[in-house]
Amino acid sequence: MTRSLVSIEDLDNDEIEAIFELADRFLDEMATPGKPHRVRGRRTLARDFILSTLFYEPSTRTRLSFESAMLRLGGQVISSAEVTSSSAAKGETIADTVRVVENYADIVVIRHSDEGAAQVAADYTDLPVINAGDGGHEHPTQTLCDLYTLRAAHRQKEKDEDLSFKDVTIELRGDLKHGRTVHSLVYALARFGARIIPSHAPGCDLPDHVKQRLARDYGCLLLRKQEIEDLHDDDFPEFVYVTPEGPHQRTLWTGEEADVWFKLSLEQRRKLREMKSVDFFYATRYQKERHEGGVGDEYPAIDAALLKDKRYRQTKVMHPLPRVDELSYDLDEDPRGVYFKQAAYGVPVRMALIASLLELFPSLLSQSRKPRYSLYSNAQGLRCTNGKCVTRQANEARYVIPKFWIVDQQPLTVRCVYCDFEYEPRIVSRSSTKKYTAAIDEWREVYDRSPRDLVLYLNEQEAIDAGHQLRRGRKRPSGKQLPTKTLAGK
Amino acid sequence: MTRSLVSIEDLDNDEIEAIFELADRFLDEMATPGKPHRVRGRRTLARDFILSTLFYEPSTRTRLSFESAMLRLGGQVISSAEVTSSSAAKGETIADTVRVVENYADIVVIRHSDEGAAQVAADYTDLPVINAGDGGHEHPTQTLCDLYTLRAAHRQKEKDEDLSFKDVTIELRGDLKHGRTVHSLVYALARFGARIIPSHAPGCDLPDHVKQRLARDYGCLLLRKQEIEDLHDDDFPEFVYVTPEGPHQRTLWTGEEADVWFKLSLEQRRKLREMKSVDFFYATRYQKERHEGGVGDEYPAIDAALLKDKRYRQTKVMHPLPRVDELSYDLDEDPRGVYFKQAAYGVPVRMALIASLLELFPSLLSQSRKPRYSLYSNAQGLRCTNGKCVTRQANEARYVIPKFWIVDQQPLTVRCVYCDFEYEPRIVSRSSTKKYTAAIDEWREVYDRSPRDLVLYLNEQEAIDAGHQLRRGRKRPSGKQLPTKTLAGK
Amino acid sequence: MTRSLVSIEDLDNDEIEAIFELADRFLDEMATPGKPHRVRGRRTLARDFILSTLFYEPSTRTRLSFESAMLRLGGQVISSAEVTSSSAAKGETIADTVRVVENYADIVVIRHSDEGAAQVAADYTDLPVINAGDGGHEHPTQTLCDLYTLRAAHRQKEKDEDLSFKDVTIELRGDLKHGRTVHSLVYALARFGARIIPSHAPGCDLPDHVKQRLARDYGCLLLRKQEIEDLHDDDFPEFVYVTPEGPHQRTLWTGEEADVWFKLSLEQRRKLREMKSVDFFYATRYQKERHEGGVGDEYPAIDAALLKDKRYRQTKVMHPLPRVDELSYDLDEDPRGVYFKQAAYGVPVRMALIASLLELFPSLLSQSRKPRYSLYSNAQGLRCTNGKCVTRQANEARYVIPKFWIVDQQPLTVRCVYCDFEYEPRIVSRSSTKKYTAAIDEWREVYDRSPRDLVLYLNEQEAIDAGHQLRRGRKRPSGKQLPTKTLAGK
Repeated sequence: MTRSLVSIEDLDNDEIEAIFELADRFLDEMATPGKPHRVRGRRTLARDFILSTLFYEPSTRTRLSFESAMLRLGGQVISSAEVTSSSAAKGETIADTVRVVENYADIVVIRHSDEGAAQVAADYTDLPVINAGDGGHEHPTQTLCDLYTLRAAHRQKEKDEDLSFKDVTIELRGDLKHGRTVHSLVYALARFGARIIPSHAPGCDLPDHVKQRLARDYGCLLLRKQEIEDLHDDDFPEFVYVTPEGPHQRTLWTGEEADVWFKLSLEQRRKLREMKSVDFFYATRYQKERHEGGVGDEYPAIDAALLKDKRYRQTKVMHPLPRVDELSYDLDEDPRGVYFKQAAYGVPVRMALIASLLELFPSLLSQSRKPRYSLYSNAQGLRCTNGKCVTRQANEARYVIPKFWIVDQQPLTVRCVYCDFEYEPRIVSRSSTKKYTAAIDEWREVYDRSPRDLVLYLNEQEAIDAGHQLRRGRKRPSGKQLPTKTLAGK
Repeated sequence: MTRSLVSIEDLDNDEIEAIFELADRFLDEMATPGKPHRVRGRRTLARDFILSTLFYEPSTRTRLSFESAMLRLGGQVISSAEVTSSSAAKGETIADTVRVVENYADIVVIRHSDEGAAQVAADYTDLPVINAGDGGHEHPTQTLCDLYTLRAAHRQKEKDEDLSFKDVTIELRGDLKHGRTVHSLVYALARFGARIIPSHAPGCDLPDHVKQRLARDYGCLLLRKQEIEDLHDDDFPEFVYVTPEGPHQRTLWTGEEADVWFKLSLEQRRKLREMKSVDFFYATRYQKERHEGGVGDEYPAIDAALLKDKRYRQTKVMHPLPRVDELSYDLDEDPRGVYFKQAAYGVPVRMALIASLLELFPSLLSQSRKPRYSLYSNAQGLRCTNGKCVTRQANEARYVIPKFWIVDQQPLTVRCVYCDFEYEPRIVSRSSTKKYTAAIDEWREVYDRSPRDLVLYLNEQEAIDAGHQLRRGRKRPSGKQLPTKTLAGK
Repeated sequence: MTRSLVSIEDLDNDEIEAIFELADRFLDEMATPGKPHRVRGRRTLARDFILSTLFYEPSTRTRLSFESAMLRLGGQVISSAEVTSSSAAKGETIADTVRVVENYADIVVIRHSDEGAAQVAADYTDLPVINAGDGGHEHPTQTLCDLYTLRAAHRQKEKDEDLSFKDVTIELRGDLKHGRTVHSLVYALARFGARIIPSHAPGCDLPDHVKQRLARDYGCLLLRKQEIEDLHDDDFPEFVYVTPEGPHQRTLWTGEEADVWFKLSLEQRRKLREMKSVDFFYATRYQKERHEGGVGDEYPAIDAALLKDKRYRQTKVMHPLPRVDELSYDLDEDPRGVYFKQAAYGVPVRMALIASLLELFPSLLSQSRKPRYSLYSNAQGLRCTNGKCVTRQANEARYVIPKFWIVDQQPLTVRCVYCDFEYEPRIVSRSSTKKYTAAIDEWREVYDRSPRDLVLYLNEQEAIDAGHQLRRGRKRPSGKQLPTKTLAGK
């Protein structure tokens, strides 16, 4: 019954808007005179509650932002700025740590270098868990702050309309591969209908699993310039992600780009043809610590000179900070630079989130969020192959059982619940009989009878290695099936 | 007049029970619905007080537990998670640190890698000091939580009887040598009359000084299987520590095991013969960071399979956590695994302890605790030889004067106040005259006239090296006296 | 309009006294019984405020002292004990960090290893900033505690006189070169008229820029023993810094020592002749971490034996702590050792400072403090050459524009606003025309017309390198002008 925020997907649209309205209210009531984006003072709402931070990776900014939000709500904080130097060094697992810390606090904020670590934490405690960054995977509270900044900058007029960014064009700059803030953000942007222009640094494109999820979960599609009918504007970007309006068939990201244009509404097509300028830049730091190589001087920087370009003259500049060289100091005083406001919004937005998860305003969030997909989980069989996935870490693998969402049926495609990597298993077997077949479509029958009996393998060799045998009378898989295509296999 | 908790011995039985009753009350009033072992909410009792943590060794779990307890009491916290990287790096001593920090706080919690460090802290401040672990020596608040867990699991029936574990059998597993939690615990168990089965990993037996103190302070004795009359049960453990009831002569641990059986009451003998099962496991982590070698695969693990054994079918499993491989995850959902409850009890028990030491309930603790033994202290003469004793660290040795309890008179035996190592000095001399004698029994006469004049040496050579001379007309010690037996000479 | 405390110069005499009177009041109302120097309890004054610590260099003592002060005022704290391991490691600048943290807190306490770092912080936020130590530069809150200790020890009689140390002789011992606490202190002592005896360890004299500022800002002068008329006392120290009373011409420190005696009032001369004893020792730790070489055994220690000397029999001993070997433990119980009281005063003094800067007592500080000198600042031209100055650090130099106070006009002398190093530029030029001249006196004319047009260079080569040309009809500077004298060129 406890709600957590591990992925931005854990909140539905109405819940995000409800959180934002609560943040509005905190800002209305607590804003510093002359600084409408900055709260001050302390409420007594959370007087009886303690927030615990568990930061396995150090972060001054994010940690202090949560602590400030909790204190401004009237609550208290216990803080662990560097868990790695203590418990984790003694070999303690995430599950054990949260099962101990749940006795000390009422809500837990976790940052960890493993992808999916926050999900593990949420699985093992009955307290609300907030993901403050899990490796290169997600950083959903940053996304809430980003959306709140977009919303504040975008709509000056009516205050009561639903949250939507259908008319917004946002250009993502820099390291789209390792920036977890970007991953959480693009999901939300796709959901709310924004047009996304991916301007990545060399070698820093969005990861395949992110693109797949964009397409599969939101129908968000990559449109190429040449696909646009009647387009003669040189300023139009080479690529843009667009989400068709209304109900539409879920489409695989791969192979079908040619049809994108025709999936859009007439209104969307018209707007795309008339798109002359970018509303927002979203710049990101080069994540040196997550890269093997380097990009050197080719990293795209944003400065006052760039904003003289016709297309960018009205562009507001966002950045999750900290910045290095990708965002010039010459925009600090420019009203188009909204990145410090974006940082300021971190407090009211996190106040609203914490208040919601602690149920200080009881009916703000619904009791639970129904998952989008069915779950496949079995201690045997398919394991995630992403080396940064929490399920692959020796310490955690001792107890975490692999879990996958069944995201497509034709061909059967599953997605790691922890890190979002997708796989197409080719072998279906059963725990009970240990007899497998390459007739992968039979998974449905097994699953419907007993979900726990279903065992999937990427390929025949894995099934054989695990001691399973070909079911009598079944054909071996054809030779060309090996090796299996791993969708997000890097 | 200020009370501290440096060793579990600093609290008498009634005080421990009083603290537990206060913890009961906190749990009654503040338990989370459906989680009777977990407190929530905040009181205002300690509103005016600040607790300071001083952690020279990092520890997320213990530190957060104290901070949570203080906040739940309504107090505030200032925290130093890694003192070593700051003051201590500049060469500051423990004494100076606490004499500064006493100006900032109202109660101090210290963790340090030197054995006896918390005693030094308590000696140099007038604030209450809580030992949160001093090297491999003691960890008394963990012991309070352990006892509280035993008490909660043991007596379901009457709530008002005195604290006693006379009918309890507890099997200690793993690293009994370096686990400071075990050292504090066995003293308390002996005191409360529990039967202790030591199942140590290879090379991880209880240290000699712990065994000596068990025997000397509590009369707790090692009983071997073959000593038990009429015993035909194969399941009976090879060894068990038992504490005879009622008044009894203090007995040296060494050499007299054959008599143990006859020191027990008829009732105790009957129960031992009928002992078929173990009530509690107390598992401990292999303290890799304190070991030189390794134990590899021989470390005794506890898992669901072991608990199928007849003797362990009813055994509750405790563990101070963090665990590594010595305690399987397959017991996490088993009702016999009480280790997460044990962690949860940490908060109400520490709340009660802090409240007692801050005198928020004035008559809960007595004004002072009378020491069990007389004190010998002299800047000259005998020094502790335990390399991990705080008195041996270059920085602290500049000001800490050696102190020893006189724990036995025949032969004269003294115990380091800081680290519990015991010694049998063979030479008695005087600060005033610098004349020594090997007639060690004369120490009493010197001590009674002027305790500060007494100087003890382990052997004649040390006295000579310090510039003392043989008193006229006295015999030299016999040759076989050299070298002196150091009881805890490890 | 926000007031900060970056240098002790940021507070005028009346403001310091007002802060001390507020500290008196906190001590009166909140002192621990029997410990008149130690506060306890919590007020609710700052209930609505959050203090953020940003410690780039770890320090248990100073950080906890601020945190305790804020909590005793009723406020809350968010704390970053080791910023370097997080944001700074990602390349974040001081300016960005404070512009983010200003959204989380109401007042910021910063410690940093760069000289002038706190000034940069104060320049970039509208919150009050407190300098808790910036490299070897200043540590003004320590100085406030030192002055408060001096004041408490010095005047027993009337409580309402103005703050003055005209009759006080203080001997500074040890490392006067690297000890930032000493630098802030000597400025304040000179200001309040104390006699200062510098007893530095070999190679640890006050830096030149400190001596220059002593002379220039306060007229404080170095008097040598042989200059004193009629002096026959062997105990008189070899050197003493004295500040002439009343209005006097500002005098350069260098070259004019012979006249010092005649600048003193008759009363000052009389007192100097009669000076037989030292009122205070101010001992400092050998700043090993800031030294390249070592001083070994020659470091001057203070112990009970030294205090038997006639001149030191009444001397009170101060030390900012932590100490190593320069201050013996044998003075800990001696009433002349006031260093633990000095540490205790840290809390009420910091409470009073925080309360003042947060304007909890609105009229306590004036709206702003008028600077003593005019400002010269230009992104071109002269740069500070002190390798430890914040303006020289690659990360900060990207955005910090050099700023200098014009501290003398004949010859033109400027002082780095950040680190206090002084320079005598020899070339004056203009941003607009890029034409320079060696007629340095013409700077005034340019500056009066447009301060931003003025560009100064240390020497002709620098101007040429920057693309400036000799103004038509002007003479080249004479050969002997090169290289320029850098006053604080260490």
